[in-house]
Amino acid sequence: MDFDLDRARHDTPGANNVAHLNNAGAALPPTQVTEAVIAHLRREAEIGGYEAAEDAAGQVESTYAAIARLLNCTTDEVALVENATRAWDMAFYGMSFAPGDRILTGRAEYASNVIAFLQAAARTGARVEVVDDDEHGQISIADLRRRVEIGHGGAGTVKLIAVTHVPSHGGLVNPVEEVGAVAREAGVPFLLDACQSVGQMPIDVERIGCDMLTATGRKFLRGPRGTGFLYVRSSMIERLEPPFLDLHAATWTAPDQFRVRTDARRFETWETNYAGRIGLGVAVDYALSWGLDAIETRVTALADVLRGRLKSVEGVRVHDQGKRRCGLVTFTVAGVGAQEVHKQLRGRSVNTSVSLADYARFDLPQRGVRDLVRASAHYYNDEQEIDQLIDALPAPRS
Amino acid sequence: MDFDLDRARHDTPGANNVAHLNNAGAALPPTQVTEAVIAHLRREAEIGGYEAAEDAAGQVESTYAAIARLLNCTTDEVALVENATRAWDMAFYGMSFAPGDRILTGRAEYASNVIAFLQAAARTGARVEVVDDDEHGQISIADLRRRVEIGHGGAGTVKLIAVTHVPSHGGLVNPVEEVGAVAREAGVPFLLDACQSVGQMPIDVERIGCDMLTATGRKFLRGPRGTGFLYVRSSMIERLEPPFLDLHAATWTAPDQFRVRTDARRFETWETNYAGRIGLGVAVDYALSWGLDAIETRVTALADVLRGRLKSVEGVRVHDQGKRRCGLVTFTVAGVGAQEVHKQLRGRSVNTSVSLADYARFDLPQRGVRDLVRASAHYYNDEQEIDQLIDALPAPRS
Repeated sequence: MDFDLDRARHDTPGANNVAHLNNAGAALPPTQVTEAVIAHLRREAEIGGYEAAEDAAGQVESTYAAIARLLNCTTDEVALVENATRAWDMAFYGMSFAPGDRILTGRAEYASNVIAFLQAAARTGARVEVVDDDEHGQISIADLRRRVEIGHGGAGTVKLIAVTHVPSHGGLVNPVEEVGAVAREAGVPFLLDACQSVGQMPIDVERIGCDMLTATGRKFLRGPRGTGFLYVRSSMIERLEPPFLDLHAATWTAPDQFRVRTDARRFETWETNYAGRIGLGVAVDYALSWGLDAIETRVTALADVLRGRLKSVEGVRVHDQGKRRCGLVTFTVAGVGAQEVHKQLRGRSVNTSVSLADYARFDLPQRGVRDLVRASAHYYNDEQEIDQLIDALPAPRS
Repeated sequence: MDFDLDRARHDTPGANNVAHLNNAGAALPPTQVTEAVIAHLRREAEIGGYEAAEDAAGQVESTYAAIARLLNCTTDEVALVENATRAWDMAFYGMSFAPGDRILTGRAEYASNVIAFLQAAARTGARVEVVDDDEHGQISIADLRRRVEIGHGGAGTVKLIAVTHVPSHGGLVNPVEEVGAVAREAGVPFLLDACQSVGQMPIDVERIGCDMLTATGRKFLRGPRGTGFLYVRSSMIERLEPPFLDLHAATWTAPDQFRVRTDARRFETWETNYAGRIGLGVAVDYALSWGLDAIETRVTALADVLRGRLKSVEGVRVHDQGKRRCGLVTFTVAGVGAQEVHKQLRGRSVNTSVSLADYARFDLPQRGVRDLVRASAHYYNDEQEIDQLIDALPAPRS
């Protein structure tokens, strides 16, 4: 592979300590990110938090610019928030639903999103509908189209299509450009949870055709924990009422009046972790310096190697679905709970995560899966680390 | 004063660089806090974010315990969130209002809170009422009591009393124990914004009688930016519906069902800035090690010295109201805008903030004040820094 792995690993001191195959949890940050965050924290301690923020205002603005380049949008369409869930919340809970309104989502939707759908449904009388999977286990565009057309324009109109790009419990990449085409054609807002895709593949909101997109800093972008962002298409911004407002999102213009900002920062809070915001910008620029195409090529190749190696181990089953796959690899070891596999791997310096059925009730139970081990590769991983994982697996039990 | 100032300043490296009288903005953190945050960030880079969080789980739990000690509540009544605004939002927007319901607040209420009241009023038909000040310029308990009694038990019932303990634009301390007594007697929930009081004086939720209390880490607690917390009395927790839910706040129990947590963590989000949480706990423990009584005594004394010195300067006017005062000191220089004063001070290494009429429309305009310089003292400040501020003031203009 034509990839400067030495540079990638040199910039990633943690790679000397662990085989970090938990990038879908939180990736190891490059030195550049860690040091940018720490430098700002030290500056805060040296001269004061507000004073350090004032001096770093340009650096914080450049985080918006970096995200705009990453997503192919404008800086006015970007809000910086504390995590992807918060980003998603500010968009989703900013919509208003009436009884009978329909929310369409996929089988692989993230649990937090579904809980929010159910809460909104209980409050408003909206209905949640789960679009079928196609034969590859990814969202069925035919079923989506059929559902959008039913009741269109009357009671039972689809008010929102909300889809997860890469499920947190599987290796597939949903065909979101096709979802976007259906949504645009029908004039239905499209909210994309790109938490697991941003940073491991190119994301272009124009090509996807989503109206809102949410992402986190800590996963494939290799940014700090406690950072996330929301993209809202300019034409959509004023159609969403921020669920919360403060003196940054709005101005108190008269004793009984306020005016909400017209850019995406209406979804932000004034107070924030500036060090995290700065680190997020550095992380995005760092990802762009590698190039998202190059990152995807390498990540996909490594994950394919991992899948192949896992399949060759007796008693191990790989569960990834989808036509197009990414850096997430999910598997089980016969007779051994995912938690136990995960623990044994961690004991041998191999980092992974566990996905439980609780997290994917529209999906895992009907696939007969109770829990999964998730190993997720990034470009700084190497084949030796994959070997290390394979060697550290517990033996299957009958 | 019987106060170990040497230790306080030794622990505060920033005190060597600036006269930091902007503690009501963000205080200089002690070394203990900065190093705890940085150590966790380094650990994340060394072994992974999830793995570092797992290893530090006990440390994070101890943050809840520290806050419970600080406030005299239980750990189940504490939620850790990203800032005081978010804390306040999770409580306020968790209430439900019907047309005609009344929200009582004070003249000095924080702008973000008022914007939220007005948003809720526009959405639900609730009404916002501003309780008068008494002759000291603090919330009038007589007027509060009168308003609570009007319409009690019928249409026009007061559904919430929401008060700011220490206004961000003035030196007074509102008589919140008396507000609490009125609220308890009437059975009305009482939401206290303690953003500017926590860390500079003892706060006891039992003595105050509040049902919800919100605070930030960065101000008088000297914790990291991007940290805050919410206290909710156990009897109140299940009466608030979290405005947002995720898989930490609730569990997805069946395809169409979820169960919300019964402790205050229902107001949290799963993903968080762990380093910040750890730093917040260290900051709270550090404050407790000094003792909040001792802190208040010193802060109040220093602020009194500052007020006295300011009053002796020709053309300078001190604007603080209230019977009981704290570490915030607000003033104007005749003929010079607050922003200009602030800038000149910063140029001479004296940190302050500016309060604009926009931030306090129920209060500053009717006091004829357009803007204020805010200097806020903490226990690590000294009289030499006060002299430095006085010496750096611009001359008044006619």
